[in-house]
Amino acid sequence: MSELTHFDEAGRSRMVDVGNKPETLRQATARSTISMQAETFHRIVDRKIEKGDVFSVARVAGIMAAKKTGDLIPMCHPLNLTSVDIEFIPLEDSSQIEIRATGTLVGRTGVEMEAMAAVSVAALTIYDMCKAIDREMTISDIQLLKKSGGKSGTFIREQACKK
Amino acid sequence: MSELTHFDEAGRSRMVDVGNKPETLRQATARSTISMQAETFHRIVDRKIEKGDVFSVARVAGIMAAKKTGDLIPMCHPLNLTSVDIEFIPLEDSSQIEIRATGTLVGRTGVEMEAMAAVSVAALTIYDMCKAIDREMTISDIQLLKKSGGKSGTFIREQACKK
Amino acid sequence: MSELTHFDEAGRSRMVDVGNKPETLRQATARSTISMQAETFHRIVDRKIEKGDVFSVARVAGIMAAKKTGDLIPMCHPLNLTSVDIEFIPLEDSSQIEIRATGTLVGRTGVEMEAMAAVSVAALTIYDMCKAIDREMTISDIQLLKKSGGKSGTFIREQACKK
Amino acid sequence: MSELTHFDEAGRSRMVDVGNKPETLRQATARSTISMQAETFHRIVDRKIEKGDVFSVARVAGIMAAKKTGDLIPMCHPLNLTSVDIEFIPLEDSSQIEIRATGTLVGRTGVEMEAMAAVSVAALTIYDMCKAIDREMTISDIQLLKKSGGKSGTFIREQACKK
Amino acid sequence: MSELTHFDEAGRSRMVDVGNKPETLRQATARSTISMQAETFHRIVDRKIEKGDVFSVARVAGIMAAKKTGDLIPMCHPLNLTSVDIEFIPLEDSSQIEIRATGTLVGRTGVEMEAMAAVSVAALTIYDMCKAIDREMTISDIQLLKKSGGKSGTFIREQACKK
Amino acid sequence: MSELTHFDEAGRSRMVDVGNKPETLRQATARSTISMQAETFHRIVDRKIEKGDVFSVARVAGIMAAKKTGDLIPMCHPLNLTSVDIEFIPLEDSSQIEIRATGTLVGRTGVEMEAMAAVSVAALTIYDMCKAIDREMTISDIQLLKKSGGKSGTFIREQACKK
Repeated sequence: MSELTHFDEAGRSRMVDVGNKPETLRQATARSTISMQAETFHRIVDRKIEKGDVFSVARVAGIMAAKKTGDLIPMCHPLNLTSVDIEFIPLEDSSQIEIRATGTLVGRTGVEMEAMAAVSVAALTIYDMCKAIDREMTISDIQLLKKSGGKSGTFIREQACKK
Repeated sequence: MSELTHFDEAGRSRMVDVGNKPETLRQATARSTISMQAETFHRIVDRKIEKGDVFSVARVAGIMAAKKTGDLIPMCHPLNLTSVDIEFIPLEDSSQIEIRATGTLVGRTGVEMEAMAAVSVAALTIYDMCKAIDREMTISDIQLLKKSGGKSGTFIREQACKK
Repeated sequence: MSELTHFDEAGRSRMVDVGNKPETLRQATARSTISMQAETFHRIVDRKIEKGDVFSVARVAGIMAAKKTGDLIPMCHPLNLTSVDIEFIPLEDSSQIEIRATGTLVGRTGVEMEAMAAVSVAALTIYDMCKAIDREMTISDIQLLKKSGGKSGTFIREQACKK
Repeated sequence: MSELTHFDEAGRSRMVDVGNKPETLRQATARSTISMQAETFHRIVDRKIEKGDVFSVARVAGIMAAKKTGDLIPMCHPLNLTSVDIEFIPLEDSSQIEIRATGTLVGRTGVEMEAMAAVSVAALTIYDMCKAIDREMTISDIQLLKKSGGKSGTFIREQACKK
Repeated sequence: MSELTHFDEAGRSRMVDVGNKPETLRQATARSTISMQAETFHRIVDRKIEKGDVFSVARVAGIMAAKKTGDLIPMCHPLNLTSVDIEFIPLEDSSQIEIRATGTLVGRTGVEMEAMAAVSVAALTIYDMCKAIDREMTISDIQLLKKSGGKSGTFIREQACKK
Repeated sequence: MSELTHFDEAGRSRMVDVGNKPETLRQATARSTISMQAETFHRIVDRKIEKGDVFSVARVAGIMAAKKTGDLIPMCHPLNLTSVDIEFIPLEDSSQIEIRATGTLVGRTGVEMEAMAAVSVAALTIYDMCKAIDREMTISDIQLLKKSGGKSGTFIREQACKK
């Protein structure tokens, strides 16, 4: 098993040096799901009735969080994302919303954490906007679906379903 | 079912007015879990061998995230938290870490989102520090366990187990 | 004429001391307008065709900017806003969007700057999202419409029209 | 008329992908004006009497805001500005201050929004520092004067005067 | 000797709970000094010749840093400062600048760290602006001079001179 | 003596243009020391007794501050650090902790300020966590030890001891 690179040989946490890595195109996709009561699900999804657009606010929150990742996660490198894209997939049978975020970068390190931060904060925003009607909403399945670019190559999660 | 208060009658998103609420002592506890391979679990938990302390870094990240909640979640009120406390509970049988965060405030609105943000960012930090050895780690069960204070009174999640 | 309170007697800039002022309910409303080509105006307003909702993104940006005011304006006090509300008024005859923001606070100093920041950043966001089709859009008329609360009392701008 | 690139074909807002654009030298100049009473104008401009230097504070605020643009405007890419320069032009006849900001970058996307944010926040800072003596100050004419670099080439606003 | 309150009985770092403390007027003064070559000292102090005002920029930086203290220091409570005041005292004999900052708050915890952060960042800003001509400038004597308010009462540093 | 490059010929502060500099590997090391009572020193260093790890929290704070440098120091360029590393050296004889931070970047301007900010904020964090038991702790000797890369070449501080 390889090393926990965020610690040096003396066990001190550190920001790993990526200065000698080449700049390559990197991309990562992560997802999360948020489970809720059926009534809450319909209040969110059927925005023509309520008119308020929960997804639009959550998308902005997720995109802005992706840009803040280096300020949220202590050992993350600050990065200049070249794109972020967030998608909401309503799963009516299970009263869940699945959120997928893809980040892109030309840089020396990957954008996995940016994609993970985006789906987390988008889900937290949905929770915040709907908690008055459903406090038991639960966010789960925050995981990396795939990444490409960089020395470690392409990763695709085998069963991109709930663990 | 009550109203989605983050939208006005025209369906526009907004920050709900809490100016006419009294200042009371409010507290909220949230949790998350992060699942991993057994080997990853032992690398994190058995810090006497690795010397690096993943939990210490994740705790700082979670506390700082709680203080940034109003900057992360669009409709959250900026709050002056009076305390944040984060606990990591290793669950050896399932190779999971459970994270619990409790926030306290004397104010006009609750601290649910601060506790939820803390457990989310603490879990993302664990993912970041260990992703080099286990990319499939999954964050789940982000949920509110209890809250007290304010007009809506005390809430305790009935089954504080995985949904 | 009264004093420029943000400077002391030696001419040094400072954050004025408001510690001896009582906490009162304060409210302020500001506005801005953004002028554009007729075609741009219709692309923004007629969101049923384009589906993208410029106003929804600009509203989130304005609300989040109001919360960041103390971090943007050097001599502004950090404040815990109790509400922010932003409204977009399409003016078809002049191909303009008028933006109005109202902030509320129970505190020791006013929320004029929060309302001014909200309408400014909401307008900048509209510019950003539409600049690819209309680079000459112009933001004007950023001004305080009214404020209430505090020792200086209520202020209502006499001609709340363009100067 | 070209596309509103900040929305995808389904109308969802997004951060446009600039990863496939080459890094080139890019520059943009924006301006704003702030109108005030004649007495306010003289209090600001004649800093030898008041000793306080409103322009110095507003310049720092504008430069710092340019660096925060990606955190203020939801769909803006985070950028590493290589310079920002802000100039204040007192227009005595009209009791106005004109503010011009120029930003430079070697990157994959333009710096228009950084220049626009700089002139907006510099003007808001002047408003903040002088609002105690002149609440009706108005900020107008926030517009892009020119930009160069990038695929869309050089843009120079034809009549760089008030609309 | 009393307890290290930022750790709980299990040795975990935490944000101390101040929710049960009353709101009182609190004030703290800190200082720093920055030592430099005689020529650098005169270039900074004699601003009439250079026209650039290093102190004005450093003052804004210090005031803004005081407002960011809760975001910089992990276990600091977020506070709504009611004033910050920064003073620069040129000490010609030793080619040093002494910086003093005083912060005020009506709140549940003290403002020592805000005053300490203000003098640190003001000094770092002087270093940054002058490093091209004097890389060996040294910042020292960052210390608390006095504090008042709160349960622990008034503290005045006995010898407020260099240790 | 060379120019104060952060001011233009009219004496206005500005962010120096580095757009025409090539991207090179740059590195900088800075240090600070914090002096305390012997008992405080032993409480911090002997973490096996107290269990709380002051250095771990201070390290995270310093690393996160390095990433925020462009947001703290007005004329600093925003940079994408490729690494930050912080070390604590207990000096038992003098009851001092020496802090050293090294930052690395592939970029157009140096990382001196990032290293200086890291050692300053790490020291302030130690002060914050221990101030309840020792208010007179003093932070000194914040200075640049060495830098390499860029047109001005390598700098090594001759006597890297206290001035």
